[in-house]
Amino acid sequence: MNTFRLTVAYDGTNYFGWQAQTKRPTVQAALEDAVEQVTGQKIRLLSSGRTDAGVHALGQVVRLRVETRLGPEELLGALNAVLPPDVAVRDVRAADEAFHPIRHALRKRYRYLILNGPVRDVLLRHYCWHYNKGLLDAEAMHRAAQSLRGKHDFSSFETAGAPRKSSVRTISDIFVRRMNEGRAGGQGGMFGELFLASSPDDWIIFEVEADGFLYNMVRAIVGTLVEVGRGARPEGWIAEVLDSQNRRNAGPNAPPQGLFLVRVEYPGE
Amino acid sequence: MNTFRLTVAYDGTNYFGWQAQTKRPTVQAALEDAVEQVTGQKIRLLSSGRTDAGVHALGQVVRLRVETRLGPEELLGALNAVLPPDVAVRDVRAADEAFHPIRHALRKRYRYLILNGPVRDVLLRHYCWHYNKGLLDAEAMHRAAQSLRGKHDFSSFETAGAPRKSSVRTISDIFVRRMNEGRAGGQGGMFGELFLASSPDDWIIFEVEADGFLYNMVRAIVGTLVEVGRGARPEGWIAEVLDSQNRRNAGPNAPPQGLFLVRVEYPGE
Repeated sequence: MNTFRLTVAYDGTNYFGWQAQTKRPTVQAALEDAVEQVTGQKIRLLSSGRTDAGVHALGQVVRLRVETRLGPEELLGALNAVLPPDVAVRDVRAADEAFHPIRHALRKRYRYLILNGPVRDVLLRHYCWHYNKGLLDAEAMHRAAQSLRGKHDFSSFETAGAPRKSSVRTISDIFVRRMNEGRAGGQGGMFGELFLASSPDDWIIFEVEADGFLYNMVRAIVGTLVEVGRGARPEGWIAEVLDSQNRRNAGPNAPPQGLFLVRVEYPGE
Repeated sequence: MNTFRLTVAYDGTNYFGWQAQTKRPTVQAALEDAVEQVTGQKIRLLSSGRTDAGVHALGQVVRLRVETRLGPEELLGALNAVLPPDVAVRDVRAADEAFHPIRHALRKRYRYLILNGPVRDVLLRHYCWHYNKGLLDAEAMHRAAQSLRGKHDFSSFETAGAPRKSSVRTISDIFVRRMNEGRAGGQGGMFGELFLASSPDDWIIFEVEADGFLYNMVRAIVGTLVEVGRGARPEGWIAEVLDSQNRRNAGPNAPPQGLFLVRVEYPGE
């Protein structure tokens, strides 16, 4: 038996999330079909975690254990040749037999993109939350978000019905900013705007890195920060919500299509 | 009668180009339907030029002449509310009654994006030419492209069957570069990579600005430059192709989905 670690990207628009379900297209099922076509074997894949319907991944990590003579490069080419166009394997490497993509993950990074202007972006419309009900104060959202840094019980940002053993997680990085903020004058602008059918000033970028995430945690944090950004709540409210350890006190979940699993880190990287 | 100048963006993936055709969805028909819904009038729109099936626009300019009490801001909101999600009006302004989007255009800018790596980009798959048959030499393509700068007869890059009065055009800017080239260290990178499910190093950006373009001219130039980039032809060949004034000497047209109409410039801008 050979063990591989796959880095997988997908456009989540047309999938009911990662996890295989009967009768509904999922990313896991698409990948398992591809593995069967390439190796002739029906196997179960294990990923670093589920993503919900509509959520995207730039660097989901997947363990593949299969009997094959194909090497990593050959597997990469063969899988991409049979996968649907909205799923791609970006990297394949041989992994230790004991490699466990959930248990061994040190940190995960998510990104959430908000288009905060009056007009939708026709090219990136499936890759953002188009918030057009007024200007959000990204700086206030950033300051408020800093109270979530560090080790906390994040029950306030966990959707019920999928309880984990512990709701304690450690956020090592979290920020909110407008796309054009903090850039050297003139530098970088052009490349950021390559794919935009909208003004760069209208984009708000949220990123968060933690040792793990509860169910819907990122979307709950973003939805709560937007309450601050639109002026419905003061900056200090985020800390109160966190301390209350009660999901009812937080804002609504932000919609899935703005969310990207950026990368998963493992020991030795 | 009121005259407006609209700036329009569209994802060309699901359209048979700009120009209205019976029984096939086009961007022009989608916009004219929206105008009819908003104003109750069936009118003909005039754009700065056609775009082919699959080609995108970030800033197509469209003239709207219609009897209405709506102002520019109201028109913008009303049209976007009824347009399909892959077409959007980015800007509306009152224009002179005599405004003619073809005759008055001073310059147009097109962009062409090539993903030059082994793995497709799942998010941007409809917005690039995925060239995976080896590494292209972007610097050689750039040098070769410089021979097209200035005023020339571009017959070699014009698809037959749609002859213009003259094949002479003036290219005021043309470049080819890899996404990461020429960037200040560390600056800008993050923003360029926001939407990428691929390595930034794999992206080649082509842009060209001219006082006008012949039919399929940009795609013919890109397809010809790729012959140089893949090493099939020397850099000096581009000048020979240009001088020959014969379409048979140029390379094949690059595919439509990598092409974007970026903007159209008018006097006083």
